[in-house]
Amino acid sequence: MARPPPPRSAPPGRGWAPPPPPHRLRSLARAWLDEDAPWPDAAVAAAGDAATRAQLLSKGGGGSGGVLAGAPFAEAVFGVSGCRVTWRVPEGAALPPGRALVAEVEGPAAGVLGGERVALNILGRCSGVASMAARAVGVARAQGWAGVVAGTRKTTPGFRLAEKYALGVGGADPHRGGLGGLLLLKDNHRALAAAAGGLEQMIWGVRRAGGFTRRLGVECSSAAEALAAAGAGADIVLLDNLAPQELHAAAAQVKAAHPGVTVEASGGIVLGTLPQFLGPHIDVVSMGCLTHSAPALDFALRVAEIPVPHAES
Amino acid sequence: MARPPPPRSAPPGRGWAPPPPPHRLRSLARAWLDEDAPWPDAAVAAAGDAATRAQLLSKGGGGSGGVLAGAPFAEAVFGVSGCRVTWRVPEGAALPPGRALVAEVEGPAAGVLGGERVALNILGRCSGVASMAARAVGVARAQGWAGVVAGTRKTTPGFRLAEKYALGVGGADPHRGGLGGLLLLKDNHRALAAAAGGLEQMIWGVRRAGGFTRRLGVECSSAAEALAAAGAGADIVLLDNLAPQELHAAAAQVKAAHPGVTVEASGGIVLGTLPQFLGPHIDVVSMGCLTHSAPALDFALRVAEIPVPHAES
Amino acid sequence: MARPPPPRSAPPGRGWAPPPPPHRLRSLARAWLDEDAPWPDAAVAAAGDAATRAQLLSKGGGGSGGVLAGAPFAEAVFGVSGCRVTWRVPEGAALPPGRALVAEVEGPAAGVLGGERVALNILGRCSGVASMAARAVGVARAQGWAGVVAGTRKTTPGFRLAEKYALGVGGADPHRGGLGGLLLLKDNHRALAAAAGGLEQMIWGVRRAGGFTRRLGVECSSAAEALAAAGAGADIVLLDNLAPQELHAAAAQVKAAHPGVTVEASGGIVLGTLPQFLGPHIDVVSMGCLTHSAPALDFALRVAEIPVPHAES
Amino acid sequence: MARPPPPRSAPPGRGWAPPPPPHRLRSLARAWLDEDAPWPDAAVAAAGDAATRAQLLSKGGGGSGGVLAGAPFAEAVFGVSGCRVTWRVPEGAALPPGRALVAEVEGPAAGVLGGERVALNILGRCSGVASMAARAVGVARAQGWAGVVAGTRKTTPGFRLAEKYALGVGGADPHRGGLGGLLLLKDNHRALAAAAGGLEQMIWGVRRAGGFTRRLGVECSSAAEALAAAGAGADIVLLDNLAPQELHAAAAQVKAAHPGVTVEASGGIVLGTLPQFLGPHIDVVSMGCLTHSAPALDFALRVAEIPVPHAES
Amino acid sequence: MARPPPPRSAPPGRGWAPPPPPHRLRSLARAWLDEDAPWPDAAVAAAGDAATRAQLLSKGGGGSGGVLAGAPFAEAVFGVSGCRVTWRVPEGAALPPGRALVAEVEGPAAGVLGGERVALNILGRCSGVASMAARAVGVARAQGWAGVVAGTRKTTPGFRLAEKYALGVGGADPHRGGLGGLLLLKDNHRALAAAAGGLEQMIWGVRRAGGFTRRLGVECSSAAEALAAAGAGADIVLLDNLAPQELHAAAAQVKAAHPGVTVEASGGIVLGTLPQFLGPHIDVVSMGCLTHSAPALDFALRVAEIPVPHAES
Amino acid sequence: MARPPPPRSAPPGRGWAPPPPPHRLRSLARAWLDEDAPWPDAAVAAAGDAATRAQLLSKGGGGSGGVLAGAPFAEAVFGVSGCRVTWRVPEGAALPPGRALVAEVEGPAAGVLGGERVALNILGRCSGVASMAARAVGVARAQGWAGVVAGTRKTTPGFRLAEKYALGVGGADPHRGGLGGLLLLKDNHRALAAAAGGLEQMIWGVRRAGGFTRRLGVECSSAAEALAAAGAGADIVLLDNLAPQELHAAAAQVKAAHPGVTVEASGGIVLGTLPQFLGPHIDVVSMGCLTHSAPALDFALRVAEIPVPHAES
Repeated sequence: MARPPPPRSAPPGRGWAPPPPPHRLRSLARAWLDEDAPWPDAAVAAAGDAATRAQLLSKGGGGSGGVLAGAPFAEAVFGVSGCRVTWRVPEGAALPPGRALVAEVEGPAAGVLGGERVALNILGRCSGVASMAARAVGVARAQGWAGVVAGTRKTTPGFRLAEKYALGVGGADPHRGGLGGLLLLKDNHRALAAAAGGLEQMIWGVRRAGGFTRRLGVECSSAAEALAAAGAGADIVLLDNLAPQELHAAAAQVKAAHPGVTVEASGGIVLGTLPQFLGPHIDVVSMGCLTHSAPALDFALRVAEIPVPHAES
Repeated sequence: MARPPPPRSAPPGRGWAPPPPPHRLRSLARAWLDEDAPWPDAAVAAAGDAATRAQLLSKGGGGSGGVLAGAPFAEAVFGVSGCRVTWRVPEGAALPPGRALVAEVEGPAAGVLGGERVALNILGRCSGVASMAARAVGVARAQGWAGVVAGTRKTTPGFRLAEKYALGVGGADPHRGGLGGLLLLKDNHRALAAAAGGLEQMIWGVRRAGGFTRRLGVECSSAAEALAAAGAGADIVLLDNLAPQELHAAAAQVKAAHPGVTVEASGGIVLGTLPQFLGPHIDVVSMGCLTHSAPALDFALRVAEIPVPHAES
Repeated sequence: MARPPPPRSAPPGRGWAPPPPPHRLRSLARAWLDEDAPWPDAAVAAAGDAATRAQLLSKGGGGSGGVLAGAPFAEAVFGVSGCRVTWRVPEGAALPPGRALVAEVEGPAAGVLGGERVALNILGRCSGVASMAARAVGVARAQGWAGVVAGTRKTTPGFRLAEKYALGVGGADPHRGGLGGLLLLKDNHRALAAAAGGLEQMIWGVRRAGGFTRRLGVECSSAAEALAAAGAGADIVLLDNLAPQELHAAAAQVKAAHPGVTVEASGGIVLGTLPQFLGPHIDVVSMGCLTHSAPALDFALRVAEIPVPHAES
Repeated sequence: MARPPPPRSAPPGRGWAPPPPPHRLRSLARAWLDEDAPWPDAAVAAAGDAATRAQLLSKGGGGSGGVLAGAPFAEAVFGVSGCRVTWRVPEGAALPPGRALVAEVEGPAAGVLGGERVALNILGRCSGVASMAARAVGVARAQGWAGVVAGTRKTTPGFRLAEKYALGVGGADPHRGGLGGLLLLKDNHRALAAAAGGLEQMIWGVRRAGGFTRRLGVECSSAAEALAAAGAGADIVLLDNLAPQELHAAAAQVKAAHPGVTVEASGGIVLGTLPQFLGPHIDVVSMGCLTHSAPALDFALRVAEIPVPHAES
Repeated sequence: MARPPPPRSAPPGRGWAPPPPPHRLRSLARAWLDEDAPWPDAAVAAAGDAATRAQLLSKGGGGSGGVLAGAPFAEAVFGVSGCRVTWRVPEGAALPPGRALVAEVEGPAAGVLGGERVALNILGRCSGVASMAARAVGVARAQGWAGVVAGTRKTTPGFRLAEKYALGVGGADPHRGGLGGLLLLKDNHRALAAAAGGLEQMIWGVRRAGGFTRRLGVECSSAAEALAAAGAGADIVLLDNLAPQELHAAAAQVKAAHPGVTVEASGGIVLGTLPQFLGPHIDVVSMGCLTHSAPALDFALRVAEIPVPHAES
Repeated sequence: MARPPPPRSAPPGRGWAPPPPPHRLRSLARAWLDEDAPWPDAAVAAAGDAATRAQLLSKGGGGSGGVLAGAPFAEAVFGVSGCRVTWRVPEGAALPPGRALVAEVEGPAAGVLGGERVALNILGRCSGVASMAARAVGVARAQGWAGVVAGTRKTTPGFRLAEKYALGVGGADPHRGGLGGLLLLKDNHRALAAAAGGLEQMIWGVRRAGGFTRRLGVECSSAAEALAAAGAGADIVLLDNLAPQELHAAAAQVKAAHPGVTVEASGGIVLGTLPQFLGPHIDVVSMGCLTHSAPALDFALRVAEIPVPHAES
């Protein structure tokens, strides 16, 4: 499950992300299965324990550029349901156009039927996120921009680990896992800073409490703010909601004065507008749409018909 | 929180859905907050306990037809964080175009900042689902079709309760909560039916075990199958993936032979193709896209600046 | 574990119920074992890991008509404790009179001793419920009544899944799993209905919010109420606490006016009074006593003596 | 909630038991409510937030001698549902014959309806257990026997805390909470003892590991075994399944040789046979039937009708 | 895992303790791993699934007298991480001086790295506790005192099961597992006793509610209090914070009047002062320092280098 | 609870740390209380609901330099138990020598007694850790060294959040919260690096997957390794187990070549040896002993005696 990252010589579009450890995948799988079936289902249970095989198919919903993601999570769901999965398309690979075999699932009939919908929901959403991430990375690389395309914390409550993982599979940076990772002072912290002794004092206090192991970013809405933040010791300056022209000018100023600072651009950037936000002084572009508005890809499960037992004849 | 349903005389597009009970909302809120912040965050904690007010704004991302949804869930997140919310737009109402005040949040600074992102993620997704649901219902009503637009189980793992609730707010039917609700025999059950003594025997066994309190549906891919299923006692016949013409013909046949049976149409139906699937013999159209591919609406939180305390002067 | 339902040609008294999926059985087993042993027990642990065999016996407590139930739950308890169970009496079968071998348990001594009491508690209670359910079904069939004997939500908090399952094993209908399944408007909803615009408006609102996948029942205490409820669209009319004569008259009226409506009788019905409530217009009789007052059957575990090791000689 | 025990001068039949602490009661209440309603219920939610009052009634099911028990657990269920309870009959008091007001419940309509069934299930079962316990204590006292009537670990999985508590309310001894409390070597430990170096070695090892804070009991099936166990240092000798005459003779022998040892009798003792097991050398009689086969008492909730609002007139 | 206790003829210093059952060890392991890694770690995951071997070493931190403890807990952590452990030093044995091989760990690289720190933390702390316990028992035995050295409830929140277990491995008595085991009336209960009718009444009430299966102790700060408590029926008299001379005199008085009562001494006793508290009338000395201030022993994990694969040559 | 950090002008020894949010503190408190009392305790419950006041005292165990820590966690334990705490010594302040009032606790008697031991265990351990941390910072500052004294992941399983928090209160840096924070390649990763394409490839892969928001450290055991790691892009070079002289030389080399790299020293450093590891090229010294071997401070709770009620006279 814990595949190593691809070699450095791998094509740049190919992503990799650390999946949760096996016990964690199983506990997520149990929670998601229980959400789907708090009460036993007579229709599923009636299928009984007969050994069953099924084909997991992608239905081409991703058009060109669809990327398979979510395999460790889906496999855990089937595993908890007593089934084995053999993948025919590797995680992170391009999905073939049209209907295509992605994996084979074997196990007791009730296990296959009981895990089906949850596993498909995982693959559909994760592949949707990974595909849009890969598309965004593709746009960037096509422009010759070698920086980082990143996600945000705009994920679905209860499903963040999978969506962050899918960003990585699609070649994007998952950004911080949540509060308690990267120290980030946003506009709302800033609004409270005056009462707390000013932004500089707030940066100083947060850095001291957050410690030397964490990077510290400050969200800024102008070049002046960005220069002040970098001057006060920010590792990352997040230029939020600046118009492209203004953004690139501000980034240039920051880089000139503080070459070691990471410059991140964000604020409603979507695939269509992405090219305007790429530039020589921008290190990172983060895009909330990659997780909050990626349409799901379409997957299906097809159980192989079990022939009438001989005893009938 | 537990608002009663609107009066029968309410305009048909106005939805209503039962939210989970308060203790359940709080336990979901705790889980989602912990997902976002497994480790304490110095940046949030540095804001301290100072009484803070913030405006929760919709940013017009929904264009025309945006519907607010998710309020009980978002309110629970702020409640667990020690904050109170006063709604300025009622749940289920149309969001005004452009930037608009949706609610006011009051509480300790660290509580406001700590709940912000999770609450916004909830509102963005729920409102996205409710808005697309309302749009689908609007399409149907515009055609003069009075049937039920329903969701499916194609929801995000970990977030189903909220997405099902949002369907209801948008005026759609949430469909079954999961396995263990409606008894539904789908194509994959059917593939196993021969070995289990045939579909009729399977329907009989499932109905007997599932009991008299549940309805029983059978997924069918032809008029012949649908007639057989209805004849074997199905309450609902789910015509899946039929071309519109074939669908309407099959539905007519079923209704002619079994007027009491509910006819449901499904299979990749999206807003654009919906009108083709509406017809006099169709009772329900269920659409997975309402939950798996609804883009999120955009909400933001704006903390009111706290002025420098007098002690400084 | 997930045995398919019996063939349609099976004797009518033989029940079947969908057990929870394996991961759910294990999580219940863990919770119940932890309830019994929050602290490690020196007496159990002292038994060590020696391979041990034990006989699981029924002690005839059920008299004639005792039915074995609870096997999947008991097996999960032993499974979590590291033991294997081989059943000698199949789930749902009649227990032989007197002391009888029901199953064999093998595993490490501490596992056998640690799981013993919880497993026996499960079997005793489930078999008690299934036996009383089977007796009730027997009473009904003996009268030539072919309707449904059902349980209620009057189950033991923390043990509902097992008790509902046992009802099914005994040949009864488990009735709804809980709130959120069948929509049921009871006397207390009715007391609130006037303020909510009347019963008809309440039925309309609940049906709209509950959706097309759920049946809707209304508890009634007179023929007039029942006719009104059926007229307002109830699928099920629950005639509660009517005297038998009144009941049968009311049921007849409802069926005459609304032949498709299910008529359910309930209200303190016990084995002795059951025959009075059976009648041609009654579809379902639901009995709380099946779960809240079924005496447990008696089971015991007998560990095979381990002979003194040779080293002693 | 945590009422102190009654004064020493209280009548002997009046019991008392330590309830779990408030946070524990609430977490049990949440788990039991979630078991009943994994999905939101449109029928309950439709009742809305209107302030509602209801009467909690006992329905005389307990006949004479019914004892109210379970109040702290039921109150926690209503508390978690947002309601307040005012008790009109104190915990542990005799329930009046016939229909009687036990408590009043106030809160939002959806809270009252949502907590109703779980709270009634608790009270019915706990009062059933307490009533049978009180009856057993009454039988013993009527014979002039001043020893301890105790329960066993034969409780319902998931509901033990409440059943053990109810035993205490009924005046019985709850016996050990579970494994890890009293050290008890039963017949199955004995079967493993030979291989472990004999019973004496096993007693020694278990006492050493279990420590000085725990008492140690040994289950015996003859006077000889009982004398050996007491001689090897058992604090409690549990004479299991002896015929009354044999029991009293064995108890006398043990007491003569080991006056400080507690003698406990058990093994299928029910109310009717209890008198035969009472005797001058018996300190404790433990009865599994008190928890595994006590029929539930009958309670009901009656919501006060809310009049049509004036606006209607 | 559940090793039987050592034979009675074993050297007195060799301890034994009942570990939790396997499912409980696994659930603790999962919780502790999740505490360490709420987010997937790229550094661990990058190691992949390659079969890996590692040596678990003790680093001599315990000086002379170090005792290995915690093996079942550490093994569960590696087990949950997909690894197998082969112990080279048995639980409870003396650790050799200097660097020594304690166990070998095999499994996927990411599993070995993911479990490493948690397992080492367990072994370091448990062995620290067991070593100090063994040292205390050694001091006592060296003085010819054969009584019980016990721990207290002064354990680390979240880690009590492991620390109590380690006390037993070190040869000490774990004392009560927590509230709800031994009934213990301490100084603070005593402060509330007057209002509750006096200490005698409180002892009586607590014994009656706590039941015959539990021992009852009373904390006393003078000989007079101790005599009163023993007279009122205490099984254990806990002489807290008495100067050694006063302690021994009080103990003698209690034993003279109540030979069957257990006398326990406590109150800030450490290794250096322990000898003063040992005496002929003292049965138990309990020492909080064994768990709250035992320095951890030092363990390390050394992964065997994986040679460069042949493909490189 | 969420106090802001001290002003920048505060004395350097005064620490601050972000506590978990209130809902998290309560859930930890519940888990720790349940660990202590899985079964209700008759001794605690017998105290009843009488309003009670108690003094929380420090007993001078910390000698000079003791620092109070753990207040938010202890307050949550009392809060969950229904009590209020008023602090008389602020978190992070020096504890006065000898017996001193730290806080007052008010609430129902059973709540005060039920929370007592868990709250004291928290304060004792957290204050122990904070005190040793403050002492280490004091040693460093006394030498004129202005770098960071940090903890490690060598914390007690189940109690990490509190121990990490206590490090901050004592003025130390908590270091990473766990795996998934700082990316750290240690000796064991290095052992696996050759097979993974070499250290440089591993650093590259981990950085790419871990993302731009995280710092990356590499554990090194020589100047050569450190230079290589810094050259390959490490943000932090962790010089582990080097002798002081060798350490300072290596640090100097790294700083000369890579001035922006953070140099951290670690490996068995204790208070006594700390001065040798301080130097101009060392940015951070991390010490496992701060959490794994800090002796606990001594705290006690003293309930105010409740006088005999007047009714007695």
